[in-house]
Amino acid sequence: MTDLINKQIVLKSRPIGEPKGSDFELVETPVIEPGENEVLTRTIYLSLDPYMRGRISEGKSYAASVELNSVIVGGTVSKVIKSNHPQFSQGDFVLDYNGWQTYGVSKGEAVRKLDLDQAPMHYYLGILGMPGMTAYFALLDIGQPKVGETVVVSAASGAVGAVAGQIAKIKGSRVVGIVGSDEKRDYIVNELGFDVGINRRTQEIDSALKEAAPNGIDVYFDNTAGVILETVLQQINLGARIPLVGLISEYNAVSPPPGPNLLALLINRALIKGFLVSDYQHRQQEFLNDVSEWLKQGKLKYKEDVVVDLENAPRAFIGLLQGQNFGKLVVQVSDNEKI
Amino acid sequence: MTDLINKQIVLKSRPIGEPKGSDFELVETPVIEPGENEVLTRTIYLSLDPYMRGRISEGKSYAASVELNSVIVGGTVSKVIKSNHPQFSQGDFVLDYNGWQTYGVSKGEAVRKLDLDQAPMHYYLGILGMPGMTAYFALLDIGQPKVGETVVVSAASGAVGAVAGQIAKIKGSRVVGIVGSDEKRDYIVNELGFDVGINRRTQEIDSALKEAAPNGIDVYFDNTAGVILETVLQQINLGARIPLVGLISEYNAVSPPPGPNLLALLINRALIKGFLVSDYQHRQQEFLNDVSEWLKQGKLKYKEDVVVDLENAPRAFIGLLQGQNFGKLVVQVSDNEKI
Repeated sequence: MTDLINKQIVLKSRPIGEPKGSDFELVETPVIEPGENEVLTRTIYLSLDPYMRGRISEGKSYAASVELNSVIVGGTVSKVIKSNHPQFSQGDFVLDYNGWQTYGVSKGEAVRKLDLDQAPMHYYLGILGMPGMTAYFALLDIGQPKVGETVVVSAASGAVGAVAGQIAKIKGSRVVGIVGSDEKRDYIVNELGFDVGINRRTQEIDSALKEAAPNGIDVYFDNTAGVILETVLQQINLGARIPLVGLISEYNAVSPPPGPNLLALLINRALIKGFLVSDYQHRQQEFLNDVSEWLKQGKLKYKEDVVVDLENAPRAFIGLLQGQNFGKLVVQVSDNEKI
Repeated sequence: MTDLINKQIVLKSRPIGEPKGSDFELVETPVIEPGENEVLTRTIYLSLDPYMRGRISEGKSYAASVELNSVIVGGTVSKVIKSNHPQFSQGDFVLDYNGWQTYGVSKGEAVRKLDLDQAPMHYYLGILGMPGMTAYFALLDIGQPKVGETVVVSAASGAVGAVAGQIAKIKGSRVVGIVGSDEKRDYIVNELGFDVGINRRTQEIDSALKEAAPNGIDVYFDNTAGVILETVLQQINLGARIPLVGLISEYNAVSPPPGPNLLALLINRALIKGFLVSDYQHRQQEFLNDVSEWLKQGKLKYKEDVVVDLENAPRAFIGLLQGQNFGKLVVQVSDNEKI
């Protein structure tokens, strides 16, 4: 037990449909001393990602649900306060999975020291972290875009979509992004170099896609499922590939909505394949090499949406599921200059 | 023009929902003389297959629709009556695509001479023809069943499903078949060697599948889509493979019904891939070698459902879409002994 106070956001009730503020609770507990081979860290940045909606639900997913009254999970960039592990020293910055809290105790083996000469620390929660790696392998391993093919990306200004679309451009494809505002549409076209952007809230997706992808769709990088997937399927080409990376449009659904009719898959001998980044841990270095290099060359751009203070995490997370963020959403939990 | 009369069944109206007898019409026309490099054939057997439902509809599919008042398409085994092609002689038996009629004129290049020492002629419309080849490549190329894995097959006593299930047994998998009657269930288990049969009309598919596939489902050979696909998806294993071969359950739908929710694909990093046999023409010999050998060894069994007389084709086809056939459905258009 230390003298420090740990602020935590715990799951108070399992949201039904859209999460509400009252599903979350801020609690304070004493910080625990790290044991042998453990490190005590202070959270600098917390990553907020759509997959967390699944973790606070009951029911089968690819990982266990967060228990009621437990801290909500999440990737973090943290600073080592005290180390009982030979590989870490006080003051080191590490990538951790400490969740929605200001302090955490982790086994040294579960923590990775960050090279801040390579990139700013918060990049490791985004373009050089789980979202970037998701974009990289789902696009290249399942999507396999080729020069001159047309790639469509949904949630295209988000943490994963923005990277996927830019990599598809690097690979020589025509890239169409679907987003939720004119501001985001301008951003993906003017800043990220997408060929076309579609605002799903103001444009009719079917006709907008037909215009944006006159030669049909070869790869659909699917972050959303729902009506976009349904519409895309009507415009795919022979042998199209659809990495299914997220189902953001239905994470808040009370019961699973039906999916798209699959006749178009048969007609076009196309494939839909589910993707989870954890299957690619052994290939992380490939990803880091390529993406670091592209960042250095200025071929990849990265935008963050930073929310300050842990207590604002629930509101920011609720907004994330509504598409209110603009760029990779992180919470600045502590000010690094002051700790 | 010859003295012969050609009986044809033409598409009188495009069926809306379930086809009716009045959507078809029997007409008689004079038989045309074959031109240079053409052969005139008499149809012995006509194959009836579910895909034909798509061809008599309007709308995008993988092949053009049959025009109104035109002969309905279909694979045939025929006898050469007159040949203007050097590779064929009167009396040869050939595999053809003459459709629902008693005579046909074909370009020699579109016709394949049958080796009747290898197998009875009607086998070339079934287990050694398009349905068998569909089963072989969709199962082995997309499904890739492994020893000890569990394979589920829908429409399992049908022309494609029965072959797919038996090949999965040859490959060492546990095989569960879903059929539409107790008689068919007994057949796939007792005659074809499936491990378990499920009667979808009398059993609750979800619980029956859980019992039949206690270790989960690794491969689902999907002939039907619909509720079976939806149920299977809740029981798939990590890395499951689903060749989408047919959507029999919705061929009569007036508008495309929704499909299954796809969250299970993501959770299990599973894939659904559409399959069409025409993509595998260049690999036909592989299929013929393996399946002929398995037939000789008694490892594959084959059952036909033979309907006599062309005029019964519409009724038999309507029944096929309702699952009333038992085995590969063919129409005996002419009696070979009498022509």
